[in-house]
Amino acid sequence: MTTIKDSVHDHIAVEGVAADLLETPPVQRLRRVKQLGTVTMVYPSANHTRFEHSLGVYHLADRALSHLGIEGRQAERVRAAALLHDVGHSPYSHNIEEIVHRKTGKYHDDVAELLDRGEVARVLADHDLSPSKVAGLVGGEGELGQLVSGELDVDRMDYLVRDAHHTGVPYGTIDHERLVRELRFVEGDLVLDEGNVQTAESLLLARALMNPTVYAHHVARIAKSMLRRGTERLLRETDVTAEKLRRWDDCDLLVGLRESDATSEYARRLSERDLFKRAVWAERPAVPDELLAADHDDIRELEEEIADAANVSPAAVVLDIPAAPSMTESSSRVLVNGAVRRLGEQSTLVNAIRAAQTDQWRLGVYAPSADSERVGEAAVRELGLDLDGTRVRDVRRGIHATLDEFN
Amino acid sequence: MTTIKDSVHDHIAVEGVAADLLETPPVQRLRRVKQLGTVTMVYPSANHTRFEHSLGVYHLADRALSHLGIEGRQAERVRAAALLHDVGHSPYSHNIEEIVHRKTGKYHDDVAELLDRGEVARVLADHDLSPSKVAGLVGGEGELGQLVSGELDVDRMDYLVRDAHHTGVPYGTIDHERLVRELRFVEGDLVLDEGNVQTAESLLLARALMNPTVYAHHVARIAKSMLRRGTERLLRETDVTAEKLRRWDDCDLLVGLRESDATSEYARRLSERDLFKRAVWAERPAVPDELLAADHDDIRELEEEIADAANVSPAAVVLDIPAAPSMTESSSRVLVNGAVRRLGEQSTLVNAIRAAQTDQWRLGVYAPSADSERVGEAAVRELGLDLDGTRVRDVRRGIHATLDEFN
Amino acid sequence: MTTIKDSVHDHIAVEGVAADLLETPPVQRLRRVKQLGTVTMVYPSANHTRFEHSLGVYHLADRALSHLGIEGRQAERVRAAALLHDVGHSPYSHNIEEIVHRKTGKYHDDVAELLDRGEVARVLADHDLSPSKVAGLVGGEGELGQLVSGELDVDRMDYLVRDAHHTGVPYGTIDHERLVRELRFVEGDLVLDEGNVQTAESLLLARALMNPTVYAHHVARIAKSMLRRGTERLLRETDVTAEKLRRWDDCDLLVGLRESDATSEYARRLSERDLFKRAVWAERPAVPDELLAADHDDIRELEEEIADAANVSPAAVVLDIPAAPSMTESSSRVLVNGAVRRLGEQSTLVNAIRAAQTDQWRLGVYAPSADSERVGEAAVRELGLDLDGTRVRDVRRGIHATLDEFN
Amino acid sequence: MTTIKDSVHDHIAVEGVAADLLETPPVQRLRRVKQLGTVTMVYPSANHTRFEHSLGVYHLADRALSHLGIEGRQAERVRAAALLHDVGHSPYSHNIEEIVHRKTGKYHDDVAELLDRGEVARVLADHDLSPSKVAGLVGGEGELGQLVSGELDVDRMDYLVRDAHHTGVPYGTIDHERLVRELRFVEGDLVLDEGNVQTAESLLLARALMNPTVYAHHVARIAKSMLRRGTERLLRETDVTAEKLRRWDDCDLLVGLRESDATSEYARRLSERDLFKRAVWAERPAVPDELLAADHDDIRELEEEIADAANVSPAAVVLDIPAAPSMTESSSRVLVNGAVRRLGEQSTLVNAIRAAQTDQWRLGVYAPSADSERVGEAAVRELGLDLDGTRVRDVRRGIHATLDEFN
Repeated sequence: MTTIKDSVHDHIAVEGVAADLLETPPVQRLRRVKQLGTVTMVYPSANHTRFEHSLGVYHLADRALSHLGIEGRQAERVRAAALLHDVGHSPYSHNIEEIVHRKTGKYHDDVAELLDRGEVARVLADHDLSPSKVAGLVGGEGELGQLVSGELDVDRMDYLVRDAHHTGVPYGTIDHERLVRELRFVEGDLVLDEGNVQTAESLLLARALMNPTVYAHHVARIAKSMLRRGTERLLRETDVTAEKLRRWDDCDLLVGLRESDATSEYARRLSERDLFKRAVWAERPAVPDELLAADHDDIRELEEEIADAANVSPAAVVLDIPAAPSMTESSSRVLVNGAVRRLGEQSTLVNAIRAAQTDQWRLGVYAPSADSERVGEAAVRELGLDLDGTRVRDVRRGIHATLDEFN
Repeated sequence: MTTIKDSVHDHIAVEGVAADLLETPPVQRLRRVKQLGTVTMVYPSANHTRFEHSLGVYHLADRALSHLGIEGRQAERVRAAALLHDVGHSPYSHNIEEIVHRKTGKYHDDVAELLDRGEVARVLADHDLSPSKVAGLVGGEGELGQLVSGELDVDRMDYLVRDAHHTGVPYGTIDHERLVRELRFVEGDLVLDEGNVQTAESLLLARALMNPTVYAHHVARIAKSMLRRGTERLLRETDVTAEKLRRWDDCDLLVGLRESDATSEYARRLSERDLFKRAVWAERPAVPDELLAADHDDIRELEEEIADAANVSPAAVVLDIPAAPSMTESSSRVLVNGAVRRLGEQSTLVNAIRAAQTDQWRLGVYAPSADSERVGEAAVRELGLDLDGTRVRDVRRGIHATLDEFN
Repeated sequence: MTTIKDSVHDHIAVEGVAADLLETPPVQRLRRVKQLGTVTMVYPSANHTRFEHSLGVYHLADRALSHLGIEGRQAERVRAAALLHDVGHSPYSHNIEEIVHRKTGKYHDDVAELLDRGEVARVLADHDLSPSKVAGLVGGEGELGQLVSGELDVDRMDYLVRDAHHTGVPYGTIDHERLVRELRFVEGDLVLDEGNVQTAESLLLARALMNPTVYAHHVARIAKSMLRRGTERLLRETDVTAEKLRRWDDCDLLVGLRESDATSEYARRLSERDLFKRAVWAERPAVPDELLAADHDDIRELEEEIADAANVSPAAVVLDIPAAPSMTESSSRVLVNGAVRRLGEQSTLVNAIRAAQTDQWRLGVYAPSADSERVGEAAVRELGLDLDGTRVRDVRRGIHATLDEFN
Repeated sequence: MTTIKDSVHDHIAVEGVAADLLETPPVQRLRRVKQLGTVTMVYPSANHTRFEHSLGVYHLADRALSHLGIEGRQAERVRAAALLHDVGHSPYSHNIEEIVHRKTGKYHDDVAELLDRGEVARVLADHDLSPSKVAGLVGGEGELGQLVSGELDVDRMDYLVRDAHHTGVPYGTIDHERLVRELRFVEGDLVLDEGNVQTAESLLLARALMNPTVYAHHVARIAKSMLRRGTERLLRETDVTAEKLRRWDDCDLLVGLRESDATSEYARRLSERDLFKRAVWAERPAVPDELLAADHDDIRELEEEIADAANVSPAAVVLDIPAAPSMTESSSRVLVNGAVRRLGEQSTLVNAIRAAQTDQWRLGVYAPSADSERVGEAAVRELGLDLDGTRVRDVRRGIHATLDEFN
């Protein structure tokens, strides 16, 4: 048995298949993939990695299995899945996941083929575990898959607490020990036991507060957009393939960007934190509905139109349209007076938080500081943002009003 | 200058009027008044006192004044008020406040007469501060009174963090440093600066989660109800007056209850945690509206009727009807795009939380464990709880369903 | 199973005999016995109690048993002993233990007769456990007794971390999870496994730093001395017996002191923190050896002589001669290269810390602030403190030089 | 003013010259230089960087200046030096500092020439600060230089707390707020005020416990030795110069090692944590004195001799002879009874800790796992380790006995 010291869970005891998986290159690679990508541009202490997060998820899965009384091969499979659940992440985690998916068809949790080869496959075989079943758990399949990926999964529990610890933003500090203790299976569904409506709400609220403050902070979004732009260019202009990129670590990508003339300016800007600024920061009502359906090619086109209109280089305009907010936790299940209920049915808060997330949604247009005003004006015109509505006046004033101290 | 080590704020530097006030008997008395009264019955680590809380409030007030650039006599007055804001608390803080108020007309923040006599008055005079002005600040009067008692006061900031630290329940862990830094005065109103809608919401959410989990935990409510009953009896059957009671500390009251035959059973039950159990635990829709208007005498009468109907001694029935939930924070002010807005207007969450608090409201009837079932049935009849509605079935099942592990 | 939230160990699961013992009056009484007595006069947040500490010790014992693979009745006995180990404490814990011992012959860990009666005896019988065996474990008897009371006991591990958490002084923050995991039995001796010399040293160092900073802070010592004086007077002048005193809680003693004319001034001084000051604060070399052998009667006599010489009332002089420092941890055992060694043999630090503790030893004479100088001069003469040596000059200057900010 | 959230100090307010320096490339580069280099191989959460540490040192310097009442240009200079004190670090911080020094003559705190060019020089000029004076402070020159680099510098205070927070090892958790508050200048010397002997000792003890557990953990030492070997080879076999290397970040070095055939095996081993094992781990008495004087060339030669004798490739033998332990803190100054004393004179602990550090010293020989036994035997012979002494038997057994869980 190996015991590993963790800054969040203190001691994590690793044994069985997990101890062997830990030593494989795909898991060790996660030491060099930051958990929060460009968020470290806003919160300098947030340098934690997918490696320690994976250990944390393994640990919480192990505690949950023990409280649920699940043992043997079934439990080993879940522990393996917990430790492996993030091996499919590309560098900078979610930051460039969309690019990798567009080119390879794979999201970070499509790990079947990664588990079926090399040392990971050998370790799983040694422990008589099927790679495809483990990959299924990572994808949330089956009853036990809910523990690894679902509304009440231990992944979320670890990342909220860990991100709070490392950013210094306390909102993510949930009562993860209680959550793990109160899990039950009722007719195949993972639920929280009686008396835990607030416990379930707290998970939801934690994410609702961490979202705008940390995960979607505009500086992190700007840096992410620039990283994406650079990465797309790297794929287009060099012989780096999406498959190769997917297996790189953060260092490979950063140095990769540095080494090509086509992308070195992106690397420089990211390294020196010489970031674009917000030219537009628009609330939902100001944005025409059709813009939300824009795909990657549409967005490139819009950026070019804005650049044309503003008379700047296309490289100087980044259009960032986030997806509509999701809220998986709202369908998490709790036992109330003996009956399983969806949290969304039980909790008045859930719909409110859904509305709040729409309130917090922002479309961004970013440009170098010097071009910011011109690009902003062009973007309002070209994107058809609602110039006359109240929200638009807010939006335009908001551009300056909500500039954070640490932009 | 005195430096005091605090488990929440680390070092607290105390100087000026505060250093002198610290040594006065009314402030030292707060060392023996627990912050959360009977909550320690549920959370055994929650033994923190009004003394350390008062120091914390002083500390945050001092930091806020410094960020706001307020100095001189005006600032000293606020610091004095912050340190003194709880000297009016009776033993067990809010637990018996309602009794004291009924008999003396004074709430815990009616401190004018306490500041106008004895050592406190002498110290204030030495520092050339007017007792009545300081008492006004404690009551929330004037512009600066908002810092001491208002929607964004430092009192709330300290107690949330401190109660989280001592109970071990993380929900109260707000970002108090940020809150204190972002306070501004705009046309006489205390507001949070731009970019702090989430900061304001977090304060509200922290209280919304701490409320059912900590402050209104049913075990704490049961113990509090028993303490109240014992205290009323003490006032009725002995020569202890409400004025004397008001200046007692927790020890005086506990030993006081022990020493009189009329009340010693209450003291024993509280000391040995041999508490009544829930006979009824009813949600809001099950409760006839007129019950909410019941005053102290009505409640005594209802208890007697229930006791009669259940054929138990009146001492074996406690009826606990909490007030409708308030939510001061909803009117806290934030700057949004240059304009002052009430949080309730700006935040979709606020109304939801108001609704959630109504969801969490419960009427309780408590009785000794052996009589619990009989009393429950009698109470449903006598109180006219809605037997046919869905909520009532929930309620009745809920009596058992939501019994906490540590009842 | 009951789960209790603790501010130090988060969730503590209590089951079996411990769950039943928890509800007994002798254990519930510990809710009202402060862990650190008068230390709260210096560190206002230090209001934690023997109750939560007992839960913590139970928890660590349970973890240690699990790591050691000890199960069944044997383990239940240890868990019972862990939860009960402090039921013998008198009010204010160690503060008046010496008085109680002088009058009753019992220290706080002489619990045999307490476990053999009332509800505790009934619970132990229900679980088929022998009171005398459990009491033996509390006294450190037998192999498993080392876990409860010995050089590496879980008592020390809990109190260091807990006292650090509540005082805010970080020095006690040891790695208790590691300590508990690394315990082994080797030929009947409890030892730390290979690679843990530093772990063992850290335990020792934590206590070495907590000692002067917290446990033996002069303000806590002064208040303790005054509490002792008052308590002795209470026993002498009223019908309170030592046996009754022993079963009181902190409130009983405080109110007891208040209610008798003979002792109310002590209660007032303690309640208002109107404490004596140091008249003498002498290092070890300045103190004649024979003084160290002074028993209780000798000390009363010396106090009277000093009072006479200073022309003050005997009540105005308190002489405080602590015992020579002990260092149990120095004989804790560690495995080094396969052999069991005493830490004192293995660690160069141990002897140094022993010497350091002698350096930190101080004889104190305390008096009301107004009499302090006169009493100091009289005491130097009457006690024969070494006036000519360097140390004495230090001592005399030290009286002022080392006055803490928060005296 | 910019406010930055830090996981250790919560909010750090940055203004004046520091706010401008923060945006310069040499400071931003520190975001990609890990604080503890290869220690993350043992403590996976230890991914914090020199950037956040520099912010922390700036913050503590600012607090210390405020407590000391130092203002104006003088203070700005110290704040600039605090923020810049680590810009001279090469990738992996101290791990390859010795190589860089051998080739360039510069240690990490030789920053004069770095401050005299580019954006840093411009910012300093804008604020009317002399680069050479700031560089002098970084080197510890002058009275105020003691705050930045000296026995009681704020650098040490930040790194101990920060390393504890990120590794999860609590030993570094010192009372840094107290340390910063108690600094005084006495006749040009930085000292701790009266009553702080234990505060000073705690700083020393924290480092004494962090050293073997964290900084000199054998796995970190092995990885560091391999990194050094790879880096030397990179300098020898490629056109990377030491000057260029010095300005690289961690990613540049890791990818640099990957990209050259001569070094890619080192990169692979470090990336996959496929590390050498200890072939010898010898205590001080077993090691001939002359070995301690071995310079870089001697060591390369000895490695070749061992490799020859063991019949393995020279690349398969790493000899690691650490310098004799230093203990700067022993000369830190404290005020005792009005006189400035060196801690080493005042504290019995200091000499003990010096001895303990010699006890903990180990010479290591590392080799691939398969060759470890053969290399170990050859090394004992070739290095003349004392085969007959007790210590040697310990040493040999120790090779296995002290193998950590997470090797």
